[in-house]
Amino acid sequence: MTNEFTLIQHYLQPLASNTGAYRLQNDAAVFSTPEGFDTVVTCDALTENVHFLPNTPSSLLAKKLLRVNLSDMAAMGGIPRYYLIAAVLPDSTGDDWWKDFCQSLQEEQTMFSVSLLGGDTVSHTGPLSLSLTLLGEAPQGEALRRDTAQVGDTIYVSGTIGDAALGLQLLQNTLSANPEDAAFLTDRYHLPQPRLALGQALAHTVTCAMDISDGLVGDLQHICTASGIGATVYADRIPLSGAVSSLLQQNASLLETILTGGDDYELLFTAPPGMESAIAALSQKTNTPITAIGTIEAAPGVRASDAEGNPLTLQRTGFRHFE
Amino acid sequence: MTNEFTLIQHYLQPLASNTGAYRLQNDAAVFSTPEGFDTVVTCDALTENVHFLPNTPSSLLAKKLLRVNLSDMAAMGGIPRYYLIAAVLPDSTGDDWWKDFCQSLQEEQTMFSVSLLGGDTVSHTGPLSLSLTLLGEAPQGEALRRDTAQVGDTIYVSGTIGDAALGLQLLQNTLSANPEDAAFLTDRYHLPQPRLALGQALAHTVTCAMDISDGLVGDLQHICTASGIGATVYADRIPLSGAVSSLLQQNASLLETILTGGDDYELLFTAPPGMESAIAALSQKTNTPITAIGTIEAAPGVRASDAEGNPLTLQRTGFRHFE
Repeated sequence: MTNEFTLIQHYLQPLASNTGAYRLQNDAAVFSTPEGFDTVVTCDALTENVHFLPNTPSSLLAKKLLRVNLSDMAAMGGIPRYYLIAAVLPDSTGDDWWKDFCQSLQEEQTMFSVSLLGGDTVSHTGPLSLSLTLLGEAPQGEALRRDTAQVGDTIYVSGTIGDAALGLQLLQNTLSANPEDAAFLTDRYHLPQPRLALGQALAHTVTCAMDISDGLVGDLQHICTASGIGATVYADRIPLSGAVSSLLQQNASLLETILTGGDDYELLFTAPPGMESAIAALSQKTNTPITAIGTIEAAPGVRASDAEGNPLTLQRTGFRHFE
Repeated sequence: MTNEFTLIQHYLQPLASNTGAYRLQNDAAVFSTPEGFDTVVTCDALTENVHFLPNTPSSLLAKKLLRVNLSDMAAMGGIPRYYLIAAVLPDSTGDDWWKDFCQSLQEEQTMFSVSLLGGDTVSHTGPLSLSLTLLGEAPQGEALRRDTAQVGDTIYVSGTIGDAALGLQLLQNTLSANPEDAAFLTDRYHLPQPRLALGQALAHTVTCAMDISDGLVGDLQHICTASGIGATVYADRIPLSGAVSSLLQQNASLLETILTGGDDYELLFTAPPGMESAIAALSQKTNTPITAIGTIEAAPGVRASDAEGNPLTLQRTGFRHFE
C-alpha cells in the first residue's frame, strides 16, 4: 500500500487549493473570508455499515461525503469554498480506492467550486470512516438558522421527498421496482443534490431553514424544538417523484418510510403568510421545485394528517444514533 | 445508550461557543475573523490502536485530541479560536465516557481559550476514532510555513525531544524506568504541550516552522523536501529531559527512538545566522526552552552526527501510515 506521503503527493495534491493549502505540506492551511461576510463551517461524517453499505465504490463515497456537507451549507444560505477530509481506512485500502475517490472529488470540485485545504489519513484494522469539514461564507448576519420559525408560518420543502429512503430499501432488497424507477431512486440515495442556489436565495424571505437528512418528520421536529413551536404536515401535499408515487400506490404502508426516512437532502423552511409569490419567484429563479406542505402552530410536536384531515400515527420519527 | 440528541443537549451544548454555534442545533456554525487576520484551519484524527492504546480514559483522549491540533496551530503561529469534533464510537460507548470526555474538554477550553462550534457523532461496530478540526487566526500573510528554510539557517527545537516516544515504550512495557521518570514520560506521551505562545512570537524571526509529531528526523525531512534543501542534526545537542538522559545512559541504543520516535509536539524551526539573541529573547519572553541542534545545507536529505562528528545511521526516520 502506498505510504501516506506518496498518497498525498499523487492523489490529494492535485485537489489542493492554489492559495493557502501549501500543497498540503504544512501543519495547517490559511484562507481569508471577504469583508462583509461571515465564515460558515459544518462537519459531517460517513461511516461504513451506518451511512453506506460495504463495498460502496469510493467514487460514490467521495460525492456523497462532499454533498451531505454541501447540503448543510445550502441550509445556511452559505457559499461553499474549501473542505478538509479526515479519512480512517482499513489497512487493505489500495491505490485504486484512492484513485477513484480523488477523481470523483475532482469532478465535484469543478461542479461546486470548492477546493481541498487539508485533512488527515489514518490506516487501521476497522471499517471505513470519513469525515469532512466544509468551509464557506455568507453575507454578515444573514446565515439561515432553524430556531426562528414563527406560529402561522407556512412550511415548505424543495424537490421531492422519500426517494432516497426507498432507494435504500431497493439496495437492501427489501423493496422492488421497475429498472427505471430503481435506477432513479438508488441514484437519489447515492447522490444528494445540495440546494445551494435556493439556500443562498432564501435569506430575506424565510424565517428558518434546515436540510432534511434524518427524515422529514424528524427534522421538522428539530425545527419545532429549537423554535419552541409545533407543526402540522399534510401528507397528501408532500411532493413525490413519479417513482415514489407508483410504489406508494402499490403499497400504502410505504407512506411512513417516505415521511420519516432519511437522506432526502432537500431544504425544509418556513415563511410567513403572504410570501407565496416571493417563494414562487425564488423557485423559478433557482430552477428548484418548492411545495407548501404544512403550518407552524403553537402546540408543541409534529402532527401529520391524511387527505381527509385525519391524524396519521407514525411509529418512528427519524434516524437516531445511540439508541 | 443516550441518543444523539440527548448527548448533544447534556454534554456538548455546555461546550458550545456563545456566538455562532447556535447551541449545536443548526446545520452549520458561523464565525467571523477580525479584519487584518487570516483564518487558519487544521484537522488531525486519533484512532484506537494507531494513535492511542485501547481503554485509554476518554478524559485523556479529549486533551490529546485537542492538543495535537493546537500544536499544529502553534506551528503556524496561529491563535486558536474554535473546534469541531467528528466522533465515530463503538456502540457500547456509555454515558460515563461522554461525561469524562466533555468535562476534560471544558478544562481545555478554559486553558486554551477555545470553544466548540459543531461536529458529528456516529455509533458503529468498529473501534473508536476521533477527528478534530481546529480554527484560529493569524495576522494577514504572517502564518508560518515549512517550505521556506534557507541554506545556512540554524535548526532549533523547543523543549525536550524523545520523552513521548520513551513514554509510549513504558506504556507498552518494552521499557522500564523508576516511578518518577515513568510518570513524567508517560505524561509527556498523553499530554502534549502545544507551544502556542512561542509559535505566535516567531513570525518575524524564523524562516520556517513545523511541529514534531512524526519524529524529529522524519519531520525535519519534511522541511527539507518542502524547502528543497538538506540538513545535519548534531545528536549530542538534542535537548533531553533528565528522565530520557538517564535511560539513554543505561541503554545507548535508545538514541534512535529519541531521534525518530513520534509525539514530541515540540516546535522545529529554522532561522538565519545572526538571530541567536532574538531567539534567546523569544525563549525568555515565552518561557519556552529553545535549543540549536543543527544546520540547513544544500545537499538533500537529513544527516545525523554524534558528538565526535561521525555520521549516525538510523534504521527508520519516523512513523508513516500505509506502509
